[in-house]
Amino acid sequence: MDINQRLSDLREVMQREHLAAFIFPSTDPHQSEYVADHWKGREWISGFDGSAGTAVVTMTSAALWTDSRYFLAAEEQLKGTEYQLMRLKIEGTPTIAEWIGRECGAGAEVGIDGWCSSASEVKALVADLRKQGGITLRTNLDPLRLIWSDRPAIPEHSVVVHPLEYAGESAHDKIARIRKALREKHADGMLMSALDDIAWTLNLRGSDVHCNPVFVSYLLISTKEVTLYINKVKLSSEVLAYLKTEGVGVAPYEAVQNGLKDYFEYNILLDPDEVNYTLYKSVVREIVEEESPVKRMKTVKNEREIAGFRAAMLRDGIAMVRFLKWLDSCSLPQTEISVSDKLEAFRAEQPLYNGLSFDTIAGYQAHGAIVHYEATSETDIPLRREGLLLLDSGAQYLDGTTDITRTIALGPLTEEQKRVYTLVLKGHIQIELCKFPSGASGTQIDILAREALWREGLNYLHGTGHGVGSFLNVHEGPHQIRMEWKPAPLVVGMTVTDEPGIYLAGKFGVRIENTLLVTPYKETAFGRFLQFESLTLCPIDTTPVIPEMLLPEETDWLNWYHQHVFDTLSPHLSPDEVDWLRNACKPL
Amino acid sequence: MDINQRLSDLREVMQREHLAAFIFPSTDPHQSEYVADHWKGREWISGFDGSAGTAVVTMTSAALWTDSRYFLAAEEQLKGTEYQLMRLKIEGTPTIAEWIGRECGAGAEVGIDGWCSSASEVKALVADLRKQGGITLRTNLDPLRLIWSDRPAIPEHSVVVHPLEYAGESAHDKIARIRKALREKHADGMLMSALDDIAWTLNLRGSDVHCNPVFVSYLLISTKEVTLYINKVKLSSEVLAYLKTEGVGVAPYEAVQNGLKDYFEYNILLDPDEVNYTLYKSVVREIVEEESPVKRMKTVKNEREIAGFRAAMLRDGIAMVRFLKWLDSCSLPQTEISVSDKLEAFRAEQPLYNGLSFDTIAGYQAHGAIVHYEATSETDIPLRREGLLLLDSGAQYLDGTTDITRTIALGPLTEEQKRVYTLVLKGHIQIELCKFPSGASGTQIDILAREALWREGLNYLHGTGHGVGSFLNVHEGPHQIRMEWKPAPLVVGMTVTDEPGIYLAGKFGVRIENTLLVTPYKETAFGRFLQFESLTLCPIDTTPVIPEMLLPEETDWLNWYHQHVFDTLSPHLSPDEVDWLRNACKPL
Repeated sequence: MDINQRLSDLREVMQREHLAAFIFPSTDPHQSEYVADHWKGREWISGFDGSAGTAVVTMTSAALWTDSRYFLAAEEQLKGTEYQLMRLKIEGTPTIAEWIGRECGAGAEVGIDGWCSSASEVKALVADLRKQGGITLRTNLDPLRLIWSDRPAIPEHSVVVHPLEYAGESAHDKIARIRKALREKHADGMLMSALDDIAWTLNLRGSDVHCNPVFVSYLLISTKEVTLYINKVKLSSEVLAYLKTEGVGVAPYEAVQNGLKDYFEYNILLDPDEVNYTLYKSVVREIVEEESPVKRMKTVKNEREIAGFRAAMLRDGIAMVRFLKWLDSCSLPQTEISVSDKLEAFRAEQPLYNGLSFDTIAGYQAHGAIVHYEATSETDIPLRREGLLLLDSGAQYLDGTTDITRTIALGPLTEEQKRVYTLVLKGHIQIELCKFPSGASGTQIDILAREALWREGLNYLHGTGHGVGSFLNVHEGPHQIRMEWKPAPLVVGMTVTDEPGIYLAGKFGVRIENTLLVTPYKETAFGRFLQFESLTLCPIDTTPVIPEMLLPEETDWLNWYHQHVFDTLSPHLSPDEVDWLRNACKPL
Repeated sequence: MDINQRLSDLREVMQREHLAAFIFPSTDPHQSEYVADHWKGREWISGFDGSAGTAVVTMTSAALWTDSRYFLAAEEQLKGTEYQLMRLKIEGTPTIAEWIGRECGAGAEVGIDGWCSSASEVKALVADLRKQGGITLRTNLDPLRLIWSDRPAIPEHSVVVHPLEYAGESAHDKIARIRKALREKHADGMLMSALDDIAWTLNLRGSDVHCNPVFVSYLLISTKEVTLYINKVKLSSEVLAYLKTEGVGVAPYEAVQNGLKDYFEYNILLDPDEVNYTLYKSVVREIVEEESPVKRMKTVKNEREIAGFRAAMLRDGIAMVRFLKWLDSCSLPQTEISVSDKLEAFRAEQPLYNGLSFDTIAGYQAHGAIVHYEATSETDIPLRREGLLLLDSGAQYLDGTTDITRTIALGPLTEEQKRVYTLVLKGHIQIELCKFPSGASGTQIDILAREALWREGLNYLHGTGHGVGSFLNVHEGPHQIRMEWKPAPLVVGMTVTDEPGIYLAGKFGVRIENTLLVTPYKETAFGRFLQFESLTLCPIDTTPVIPEMLLPEETDWLNWYHQHVFDTLSPHLSPDEVDWLRNACKPL
């Protein structure tokens, strides 16, 4: 990749258009976290391939902002380019607007593609730039159209119907619920642009985005009509017929802007965090600015979806146990990539398997401290029979999505490794044990995963947990468990991960993750209380645990969990596998 | 009190003015939590005397909204009146706007005194009422001027200088810091109307409000001038001379509105949560709407203030120990009021004593379940040598303000009482033990006080903690420890209470409260970590504790705390008192 040539091509366009800087965010017109190759413009212009980051190029300088998950990876990937790494949330790091102000001076004009940023992001950016001596923002130019000659096309993979057996509620019924929610917000219709929301609403799945079973489209709902804006080549006659019975019309993907202009009702709900700026500005009717009601609907799983999760977790657990047993006794040499491939092969043997839910993170020793490490042929290292392997992985099954992290002792450990492992495990278990009143948000319970770490002066800067889709994206909001305030309360039927970790740069990383389900706990004079049920079925390595650091309730939970894992998985395993599992699940 | 006659007088005014309803909030022109008698209009019109509540009167109905602290008290006090009790945060309770919409119908006009509500409250109310079929709000009428014939005057108590020895920073230096903070917010000046902020800024104290050493006034700061709007009768020649040396001019209290109209700079910072609506609307210059910078400055205590807190806590602890020793062996009959008076007498013996910091809450058995119970001659009950006495009290000393709750076993307890007491104590201790990274807010740590309770299906609806002023108001924000999101982080030098509780209606209440100081803990590669230091010096009753319910770290803390209390207080006590304290502080 010749980043310098690309920068030079870009600057030619910028000069012609009198733009002092151009901003490349990491997303697509649908505000996707992971995007189709067509929209990997930030990666193309900077060489940095993390899922989150913003590149900014001026006539004489370039910089890339990313978060702590990617500090080490970005440093590596930006080497030898003009790009300066800007570490988000670290003291002294300027904001994008501040940096542009310093580099370009007052009165400059800078550019961003209005299709690839949300309305609220662009509005905030406009306000921030204005404070930098009145810098203005142009949004109607995509320089990549001119300079990215071998740019991949927008994907045209075909769409399939997600059976009611797994979805649990028809598209027709979901649309009726959405319309009711819109009426409650005094809105006549809405534009949906989040790809997982559209897939969930219509009970359709695709394969346009790596690991995310979604398809590129928009959905416009009014009181009378529902229109799916999509490239028709993606729709078989079967899917077309299905859409017709569900009351959904079809129009070309590119027609969405005109569809909005023709929208004839009084008002329309747009989620300014979801809808891109260009479409937002195309609306002629009154806009109701609200969070999309679909976000919260989708996160609350129905009975069929929960049953699907349980079935998928059982198969995923079987694959994990077979892998862990193999890893225990496999002959070396093995590398981070070879064990990732092996794990993928075990998962692929399972019924209803439909690929990975994200790229496996297999980080051995110091690589485990790179939070979103993905081994490549350049970074791959051989495993030895010592130290810790951090393994964060998951799969898509037709009936559910999995996300699990285990940190595995491959042999002797240092005292520091055992101590950190046990502290992280304590945090994990405290979330598993937590009971909370209905209405509590993840921010309120987050400390339970961290307090043991904080007492030792340790911390992790990522969230403790995120929602998980039902054969959909592995990251699903708006609820989360994290230090930052997230007002979305935890609701019965939501999935959420529990994944505290600690990362000691240059040494090792530890993370322990299960996917949990929010369930009722008890109802008293003080209201309804909720709890978590662990959906993930896989032993947690106990060999690094320092038992005297655990509270009795923590030891009890660990022993209970292992008995539960053993009882649930063993009927599906061979005698050899059962023997291995019995040992892995033996009480502390 | 003839509430019906007052309602009838009010309705005559409403009819004449064509107002369908009138709203009486609980505050004054300064958004005080506790107000001078002149502004107790809500109490006068409704008969309900709690510190928080809003009365609304229509031509045919009346209702009073208050929070869970006052449900039982309000029920009692509203008996026999037209008022319907509206329980805030309970499912099914309408908002004030919704209720007015139902009672008055579309298109009505309703009234509120624009002097006695903040700008943001009135703006929110206007928006809420508009949604109720376009109900409008009139803000320039105070019907109490017409119907409250024996209304107390605005207080005229004299103001005194708070010595630098206790304040630790001169008014002149504080004003310089405020001006710097204003420049950072791109503001030329500000109007301060919070009485404790004014007292803090000028190092003055007053006695206009029961238990709060503040004085009624406004403070207008511009780049060149500082003007105190106050009734001059309150200022001795000594105070006038002091103000002159600190660079503060004086104008009549009533002149503040004209002062705002004459304010000649480009813009002015107004905190819309603090400044009342009428003054807010009087401003002719551009308004910078921001939180007042004084709020956070005031909460971070300087070294002299912290030294003052320690000294005040020592004297308060001595008074508490003398009282508890007396209570242990006093001869009955005693009542809630008689023991409150006795405690007050012990405090009054202490040097630098300057009255109570709030009305003592002494709730015996079922009365302990009324969160803000204050015994009156009608409700006062005799104590027996059994059950629990909840005692929440505090004092103003010239060098600090105290706030402490102890729940005391007067004799045999039920198993339920012991169990609930121990659960509340666990929550209290978990906050004492907590370590957290710099930047964490009280919302993040709140669960530590509640998790043991939540596991039993118990909860309390008040906050876990609030800031405490330095010879100022016992409630001080913006930081808090509570379930609701409060973005203000905990900062080294802040005081905050730790006061979980459980209230079983008709049975008993338990609350255990110390006042804590935020101090540094450690600095690591993961940043700065903070902790709490308990300032309060008074034994916690261990006779109700079920020892096996405590974690080892909780027992250790309790034993450490009692040793600390004993070591600190005993040099100041008589041999008899030392003997009593030794027994009260003996390890579990």
